[in-house]
Amino acid sequence: MNTTMPSVMPPFLEDLAPRTIRLADWTQVMERSMLRQMLAVVSQPGILSFAGGLPAPELFPQDGFAQAMAHVLATDKCALQYGPPFEPLKRHIVCLMAERGVTCRPEQIFLTTGAQQGLQVIARLLMDPGREVMLEERVYTGIQQVVNPYRPHLLTVPTDLEEGIDIDAVEDYLLAGADPAFLYVIPEAHNPLGVSITAERQTRLVVLARRFGMPLVEDDPYGFLCYEETAVPALRALDDEWVIYVGSFSKILAPALRLGWMVVPESLYGKLTVIKESYDLETSGLVQRAVSAYLDAGLLPDHIASLRRAYKTRRDAMLDALSRHFPAEAQWTRPKGGMFIWVELPAGINTAELLWQAVEEEQVAFIPGNAFCTTGSPATSNCLRLNFSNCTPEEIEEGIGRLGRIIGRNLNDVTEKVIT
Amino acid sequence: MNTTMPSVMPPFLEDLAPRTIRLADWTQVMERSMLRQMLAVVSQPGILSFAGGLPAPELFPQDGFAQAMAHVLATDKCALQYGPPFEPLKRHIVCLMAERGVTCRPEQIFLTTGAQQGLQVIARLLMDPGREVMLEERVYTGIQQVVNPYRPHLLTVPTDLEEGIDIDAVEDYLLAGADPAFLYVIPEAHNPLGVSITAERQTRLVVLARRFGMPLVEDDPYGFLCYEETAVPALRALDDEWVIYVGSFSKILAPALRLGWMVVPESLYGKLTVIKESYDLETSGLVQRAVSAYLDAGLLPDHIASLRRAYKTRRDAMLDALSRHFPAEAQWTRPKGGMFIWVELPAGINTAELLWQAVEEEQVAFIPGNAFCTTGSPATSNCLRLNFSNCTPEEIEEGIGRLGRIIGRNLNDVTEKVIT
Repeated sequence: MNTTMPSVMPPFLEDLAPRTIRLADWTQVMERSMLRQMLAVVSQPGILSFAGGLPAPELFPQDGFAQAMAHVLATDKCALQYGPPFEPLKRHIVCLMAERGVTCRPEQIFLTTGAQQGLQVIARLLMDPGREVMLEERVYTGIQQVVNPYRPHLLTVPTDLEEGIDIDAVEDYLLAGADPAFLYVIPEAHNPLGVSITAERQTRLVVLARRFGMPLVEDDPYGFLCYEETAVPALRALDDEWVIYVGSFSKILAPALRLGWMVVPESLYGKLTVIKESYDLETSGLVQRAVSAYLDAGLLPDHIASLRRAYKTRRDAMLDALSRHFPAEAQWTRPKGGMFIWVELPAGINTAELLWQAVEEEQVAFIPGNAFCTTGSPATSNCLRLNFSNCTPEEIEEGIGRLGRIIGRNLNDVTEKVIT
Repeated sequence: MNTTMPSVMPPFLEDLAPRTIRLADWTQVMERSMLRQMLAVVSQPGILSFAGGLPAPELFPQDGFAQAMAHVLATDKCALQYGPPFEPLKRHIVCLMAERGVTCRPEQIFLTTGAQQGLQVIARLLMDPGREVMLEERVYTGIQQVVNPYRPHLLTVPTDLEEGIDIDAVEDYLLAGADPAFLYVIPEAHNPLGVSITAERQTRLVVLARRFGMPLVEDDPYGFLCYEETAVPALRALDDEWVIYVGSFSKILAPALRLGWMVVPESLYGKLTVIKESYDLETSGLVQRAVSAYLDAGLLPDHIASLRRAYKTRRDAMLDALSRHFPAEAQWTRPKGGMFIWVELPAGINTAELLWQAVEEEQVAFIPGNAFCTTGSPATSNCLRLNFSNCTPEEIEEGIGRLGRIIGRNLNDVTEKVIT
């Protein structure tokens, strides 16, 4: 194409003094996710990293997915065009949800460009500026990023490391008149804590939701990655009106697909569609079809089973290594599923400082606990999150050994300081 | 996985009287996009449709793209993992932007999940609730959906059907003290009007933007689809501080990829990254790599050239058919590029009513002009938008003939009413 004007700025434009673009008020309190920043720093070659939340790339079903993709591109004339949500994929997801104890219909399956988008559209639907939102004190950073622009009033509740979110604390807020836009929870294999909510607490939570009219946003990226014989069903299995379920293919298939779904009350479906359109018109029809073709081939159950075996081995390797290499004063969660273990070190050790030491001296990385602290909730400076899905058992043994050494040295320093 | 609880709701939960989920205030004024609703209705088999904004699916480079995708899935171990924006793709986009007269660097290329997401993240960055936004009276519906949740104060300006947006009207607002978060424009091959802003008006617009500190959001989905010898460069070629350029692969490659980009002032890059993360973490790394591989193969220039030839033929077929089948009192734009022609019928014809008649009696569809009216701006009940990219020249001749017949019948009715 010929262009009729030069690509440089006409000189007379330079004379006008430029000002700065005025940004929205909330951007003054915008924080770059500490987690994503750290991930960038520690993702250097040679670093043994337990920092990210990455699935194991060597376990991706790359061949099977490539075949599904090739089939779609060779046979489906609509594969590259705009189009409505792909119904066969919705039907597959209905079957998948049965694995989580959930009975639902395709009309309740809302496809999203990853689970993160699900959280975004829910917030847009439910939140007014300044409204209350209930979060755990330790929380997935992505939900904080979603609600921050609304300058919300955060109601934060503690989490028991063996039984999950503190239901009494939730109830106390509600009895005191709180009316949050929603409560956000990861009931199964919490990120960052690794804990699962007990069945009893699940029931209490749903009862509270109905009694007080508080929607529950159930984020369930790890629900299919359970390493024990029995898994508690999703919250959504208990209530189809007050629970909005958010699911994802990122951890059971591949993150780069950016494909997720929600199970939503049908009354909200139309409004969510309008919001979703304003975000990205629609989720890639090509990806929808390729994933649906992969599911048609019946490959997912075996794939999930192999993920469970591999991740269980890694979890067990990490728990074993922790018991041998970490000091007796340290404590950690024993996750039933998911990808993370939460460690509490003795008070006095600052894990943010420890991280830089660990990276420099031992080439090993993790995420300090404070990265997951909800604004305004108590700090957890002596805690850290470890990921066990993205390293081999051998790397886990090696890396936890290195971390144990550096913690040991710091523990000596702390003791010396106390003594001197 | 075994589940320990039944998937039905425990009976005692049913006793608690449920209330309704409280939605955000703005949802009371939420409207389902009239355009998307109409598209759903007229997308029935047997309907000859000029309604959508769809590219021609028979022109998709499905084989070439399938090869690129297969290559990526066979060779790139990172193709399915989370990851940062794919640098080789950014470099390709820098080259592509030179075609639009724009000199830029990879550090200014911000990848998005389609152009619609670009508009969303810009609004989130720049808009406070209730703030002013400047839009044309006839506008792409997707931008209205983006700004509506902010309950903005809309400043609307007319558009000349031969020269583009009315710069005097823009200036009048600014001189009167308006301070909009941004002005949104499609400078090249406007949707829905089909007009391109003249070079002189482009320069005046950029001068105003700098003088008054008003960011310009330049939406350019059709900028590469110019059917004349010379194209005016993008607004971004004139200013790298006040113009935020929004580009898309939807119309030059395929919509189902959901891949777009922005060219942004570098000072905004970090904040946009935080916002983008909160929307969908990142744009599909698989799609980024597949498109980059397609561009590596050097296939895009020839593909765009063939799109231009095909769409030029279709545009000319439609202009020719309009001149033969539409009444002498009707007027329409003669687009230099893009996908749309805007038609003004004689006053008294209501195109919303005409549409249902056209669908029922002649199995032909279009979008009534009012679907594109900015809230509060004058109605255009006698106007309609025609798409020429998604029908063959033969279908265009047939469909415009049918539309002409039905308009003729309505015109007689109008005349009779006036006489009797």
